[in-house]
This record gives sequence, structure tokens and C-alpha cells, in this order.
Amino acid sequence: MFRVATRASVLRTGLLRNLSNFSSSSIQSAASSSFNKRINLLPWGLLAAGALSGFIYYHQYQTLGLKNKVECSALDQDIRIVKLTGEVTDSSPMRLRMEQFVKSLQREIVSELEAIDGKKFQIDTWERAEGGDGISCVLQEGNVFEKAGVLVSVVYGQLPTAAVLQMKSRNKDLDPADGPFPFFASGISIVLHPHNPMAPTVHLNYRYFEIGNEDGTPRIWWFGGGSDLTPSYLFDEDATHFHRTLKGVCDKHDLSYYPKFKKWCDEYFYLKHRQEARGIGGIFFDDLDDKSPEELFKFVKDCGRGFLPSYIPILKRRKDMPFTNEEKKWQQLRRGRYVEFNLVWDRGTKFGLHTPGSRIESILASLPLTATWRYNHSPSANSSEERLVEVLKTPKDWI
Amino acid sequence: MFRVATRASVLRTGLLRNLSNFSSSSIQSAASSSFNKRINLLPWGLLAAGALSGFIYYHQYQTLGLKNKVECSALDQDIRIVKLTGEVTDSSPMRLRMEQFVKSLQREIVSELEAIDGKKFQIDTWERAEGGDGISCVLQEGNVFEKAGVLVSVVYGQLPTAAVLQMKSRNKDLDPADGPFPFFASGISIVLHPHNPMAPTVHLNYRYFEIGNEDGTPRIWWFGGGSDLTPSYLFDEDATHFHRTLKGVCDKHDLSYYPKFKKWCDEYFYLKHRQEARGIGGIFFDDLDDKSPEELFKFVKDCGRGFLPSYIPILKRRKDMPFTNEEKKWQQLRRGRYVEFNLVWDRGTKFGLHTPGSRIESILASLPLTATWRYNHSPSANSSEERLVEVLKTPKDWI
Repeated sequence: MFRVATRASVLRTGLLRNLSNFSSSSIQSAASSSFNKRINLLPWGLLAAGALSGFIYYHQYQTLGLKNKVECSALDQDIRIVKLTGEVTDSSPMRLRMEQFVKSLQREIVSELEAIDGKKFQIDTWERAEGGDGISCVLQEGNVFEKAGVLVSVVYGQLPTAAVLQMKSRNKDLDPADGPFPFFASGISIVLHPHNPMAPTVHLNYRYFEIGNEDGTPRIWWFGGGSDLTPSYLFDEDATHFHRTLKGVCDKHDLSYYPKFKKWCDEYFYLKHRQEARGIGGIFFDDLDDKSPEELFKFVKDCGRGFLPSYIPILKRRKDMPFTNEEKKWQQLRRGRYVEFNLVWDRGTKFGLHTPGSRIESILASLPLTATWRYNHSPSANSSEERLVEVLKTPKDWI
Repeated sequence: MFRVATRASVLRTGLLRNLSNFSSSSIQSAASSSFNKRINLLPWGLLAAGALSGFIYYHQYQTLGLKNKVECSALDQDIRIVKLTGEVTDSSPMRLRMEQFVKSLQREIVSELEAIDGKKFQIDTWERAEGGDGISCVLQEGNVFEKAGVLVSVVYGQLPTAAVLQMKSRNKDLDPADGPFPFFASGISIVLHPHNPMAPTVHLNYRYFEIGNEDGTPRIWWFGGGSDLTPSYLFDEDATHFHRTLKGVCDKHDLSYYPKFKKWCDEYFYLKHRQEARGIGGIFFDDLDDKSPEELFKFVKDCGRGFLPSYIPILKRRKDMPFTNEEKKWQQLRRGRYVEFNLVWDRGTKFGLHTPGSRIESILASLPLTATWRYNHSPSANSSEERLVEVLKTPKDWI
């Protein structure tokens, strides 16, 4: 049900402008023009591509109606018009502004990461026949990054009845009898695994979900997302910097956000079978609709724009640190834990893997290039490896 | 709820004989005495150990009642008496004969694998407070094997009501009002990952499950298990040898078994998200009770004893073959698929990981030492890598 456009088919159907439409957004970075030229319309067979690249979480996936035949709604038409004209302003519908924002943020982050790594991302676009498209940027075996994925996706269509019932169970006021409901979802997801075991892995995901009325106005909507840090070697100053940056963003919008979302993050990124957190946390939230869309969009934009300042200073001071073979081995074991979390516990990944026709390569772009499982390994007493595990077992306050 | 005995506590409570009681079985190999001396009563904290080492499958796990307080039933007493006296004969209850068999088979296989590798297995025993014990033998970074696990476990206790209801849904004639029911489960699990990419990974698991009457006689029982081969490079003669050996064992007992269990295996060891089989299959069955316990025990024993003949000739002709760095990299990608199957699809592993107090190290002993995920990798046209993937997408008949 997903289709990755080949160069030939794109030229044939005139979709090129559509697939690379972020270039027509009003926010253009200096890098965008060369970025667009590099878009790689990889042949991928006719069936490929995941709803929201596997990073948009479970609840949203459940509403996507991947197998539903899409009828043309007012919402679809809005999007199509904008795809053609490329005009998004502050008075455009939120779904269009969010799409524009995540694509613009992707471009900005890819550009910055390329400057640090010195190697270019591979850029693949895909198109969802039922409505939507995605851009997967992946850099692997770079100079700094073992693997880095920066992915966006936009999906829209009609919400099936089962998904409407699921919405109701989440206290969304939807009566199936009033359907079908048009929906729209867009998001950005990032996972960076640096080579150096002293440099932590980082993850980010922000998303917007909307269920519309037939006239195209939003009926129900929310934002979700977060960002968390996963070190193999724990430097307290890094953890503090990361949390302080996130808290700074949260505090600008609501003083209750950081403590609430920090706790939510510790609870979500938790490997129950290991009884340890994936990393030293960050923030995580879902179903956020406690303020106006305008206010929350500002918050989410600030979160997204806070990514580079939260992570790049840490990366820069760790990426060239000396390390031993033993330290590299420990990183590989921690990579194994990352795989365990993503394959066993992460709701978005699990749902993507169980959804026929998902674009598996995008879903699993979050996995490290390499990982290790060593039977019965435990860190030596009073080592820095042991201290990391202790912190993962009892999440700390970092500020 | 599981406890791995430390040397001190074992000596204190006189459990040593119990933990290593396979030495008292009537079937003793020459290797058994040195094997027993090497039993490693690793300290593991007070809570550890998995119900059936993570390899006994989902349905069985669901019946284990891990959190149930165990009362002393006739079945428990039987086992305790035998643990003390070590006498198991052909007229002993099946549960005791199966326990003796899997422990004896473990010893035989560990001994043979050590002879081939030249390095010794690490042997850990664990004890389940509610009833049962296990022996996990793992060899990693050997001369031939990257990682090799040969694990047995024996679990008994009282079946909780939820599990009884689950039994009913599997058409087992149990009325919760007649409970509580004593249960017993035992099994052996093997996963071998050789270093050489030309030598395939192999997996085996056989298990016996019984629900007893209060007088200790069996009320419901069945056998389950199978064995499958996962090559990174496909040699048709290896696949044919493996299947022919398994078919030989099956045909001795029932001509309908091999075709039925071969198909079941292809369906079970299947990565739906990749639309490919884990490997080139073998046999798989569950709920097997279509003949007398005596006949099926003979069948399962033949299956277990068929393991070395089915695999060792393949290993011997592949383990020292030359290979390139590129071939090693391909093996690492295939290892990644193995991890995906075990963490995402394998019912036993999943259930073990979701069961608090499981012995995670035993459950995840099936994972390879190393694995790789490479974004958007696809084998080159007409390569042997491409041919493997084609075969995995459309399971073949090998005989």
C-alpha cells in the first residue's frame, strides 16, 4: 500500500515537486537547495514505506487505517492544494504548518549533522498510495556516526471504525455513527548512534495528530513526542546539560511540563525484563491538548529546535575522546539493550512491525549498526560501567 | 521467585545432590562425572532463573503459574523422592523419565560440542523456589562457536485458574472447579551460532507438559518441540542432509509426521515483517498427544538423539572453510534477522521477557554474540546472498 517512487515514475507522473515539496516552504535554509537535489528516489519495489516511519507511537498507528480506501475529503484537498502551491502561512491549518515544520527541522538537522560528520546522508522518499509521504535520511558508517537516522512522515486518510473505537477508549469524544472521520498525522524521528563509546546515543520524536470534521476543520487533535539520551559511559555534566536544555524549553511554556514529562520519559523508556531504563531519560508526552493548538505548536517547535543545542555540545566533547577495546565492547553490549528496547517494548516499532506493508527499513533505521549479547556479563565492581547500570536502575534527577 | 543457588547456600541446605541429580540417572555417559564437577553454582542475586529457560513456548509458559504459591502435591512428592534416590526406571512416571532424558541428552551434546570446539562450556544451575531447577550450559567465543547454548529446565507446581482457562481454550478438557491442578514441564533447548559464515546456526527444543490429578497420575499431557537450521550461505546438500535426517526420525514413528511438522516449522519460524523464513526450516510440533505417551516419548527421544547426526556432519564440513570479510558481514546481517525473530516473534522468548522474575540470561542465551543492522541493504543480483533470500521467501522441499 506504500509506494516508493522511482526516478522514472516520478518524472512520468510529475510528482517530483510533490515529493520534494519542503523546498517550497516559506522557511528555507541555505542547505535546502542542495538537500533537494540529493533526494534519492530509490526503487523499492511497489510495496514499501511505513505509516509514520515506525517512530510515531502505537496509539497513533492504531488510528491510521492503513488498509482503508481513502475518499477525497476537504482535508485531503487542502493538502493537495498546498502540495501544488507550496504556500503555508501562520493562518494555514495546523496540519500543514506541522508538516512544514518537521520537514524544515529535518533539513536543518541533517545539514548540521553532515557538517559534523563530513559524510552525506542517504535521502530516500516514499509515497503512501492512500495519502501521505515520507523522507528517510540515513547516514551509516560515517566519520562520527555509526548510524544516524532523521526521518519525517506525513499520513492522511479516513479513520476506520475500529480506530474510532480505540479513540473513544482514550477518552476522545468520537461517535462512530458520525464517521467516517478524516485524519492527519505527521512527525519527525531521529536516532543518532555515534562510533565513540564516550558519545551517547540520542533519540527524538515529535508528532501531531488530528481528526477532522467533513468541512476540514479539526475536531480532535493532539501533540506527542519527546527526546532521550542513552550513554554507554555516563558523564554527569552531559546528563545535566541535556536535561537542563529540555527543562529550559519546557519552562518557557509551562512550569509543570518538565517534571511531568521527565517522569513520563523514565517510565516509557524502561526495559522491564532488565529492570533498567534505556538511558538517562529526557522528556516524553502524549495526547497533549491542554492548551490551544497555537501554544502547543510553539512548544513543540521549541522542543524540536532545542534538539541541536541539547545534544551537539555533548557530541562535540565526546566524539574524539580516546577509548579502549574494552570500552568499545561495553558500548556494543549497551547497543544490544537498545535493540531489546526497540524490538520488545517500543510501541511504535512493535506496531509498525506487525502492520503489513510497513516500510521496515524506516522502522528499523533506529537500530544501531552493530550490537552484542554476551551471556552472563556483569560489570566489575566500582567500575564506571557498574555506576551506569546503577543509575539506569534508579533514575536520577539531573537538575 | 527463582533462585540461583550459590555454592554456600547449596552446601548449607544439602541441595547439591538435587541440583546435579542427573548424575544419579541410570544413563550415565563417560563425560558425566567431569561434567558434574564443573557445575558452576554462580551467585546470581536472589531473584533469577526463567521458568523453562525461555525456550519452552508461549502456551506452556502461560500455564506455569509462576506467581502461585506451591502446595505439596503427590506429583511434587514423587519428584522429591526421585531427587533423593535418583532411581528412574521404565516404569517411573513420564515426567521423571523426560527430566532424566533431557538432562542426559544435554550432557551428551555438551560433551560432543566441547570435543569439536576445544573449549569448555560454562555450566550454571538455578533453582526455582516454587519447584524445579535448570542447568544452563553456554560456551561463547570458542574456537568453532561464537556462542552455543544447551539448556534444560524442569518446572512444577500448581496451575492457576487463569492458566486452566487458557488450557480450555486449547481444547484441553479441564474444569476450573475441579482444580487446583498440579503441573509439570520439562524441556531442552539448544542454539548454536558458529563463527564461520559458511556454517549454519541450528536450534532445537523439545518439551513435555503434564497436568496431573491429585493422586499424581497424569490427567492431560503432551509433547512439543522441533529443530531448524539457519544458514547465512546456503549449501543445498546441507539442507537436504538436515531434512533427510529429521524425516528419517519421523518416518520411523509415523509417515504423516515429517510433511506435517515440516510445514508447521516453515510457518512458525517466519518473520512476517520481512516476509521471509528465519532459515531453511526443519520440523516443529506442539500439543502432540495423538499416540500413547510411551510411543511419543520414544519419538521425542529419537528426535533429540537425531540432533548430533543432523547437524555435526554439516558443521564439520563448513567450520574451517575460507571466507571473505564481505561474507562475514552478510552473516552479521543474518544474525540481525535471528535477533528480530527471537525478540519480535518467538512466543516463548516474548513470554519469558514479559514474565517478572524470569532468568533473562537463559532466555537470551539464544541470541548471537554479535549482530548488525545495515539500512537499505540488499544483496547483489545473482549472488549467493540473493539466492538465500529467495529461498527464505519461498520455503522449499529439500527431499
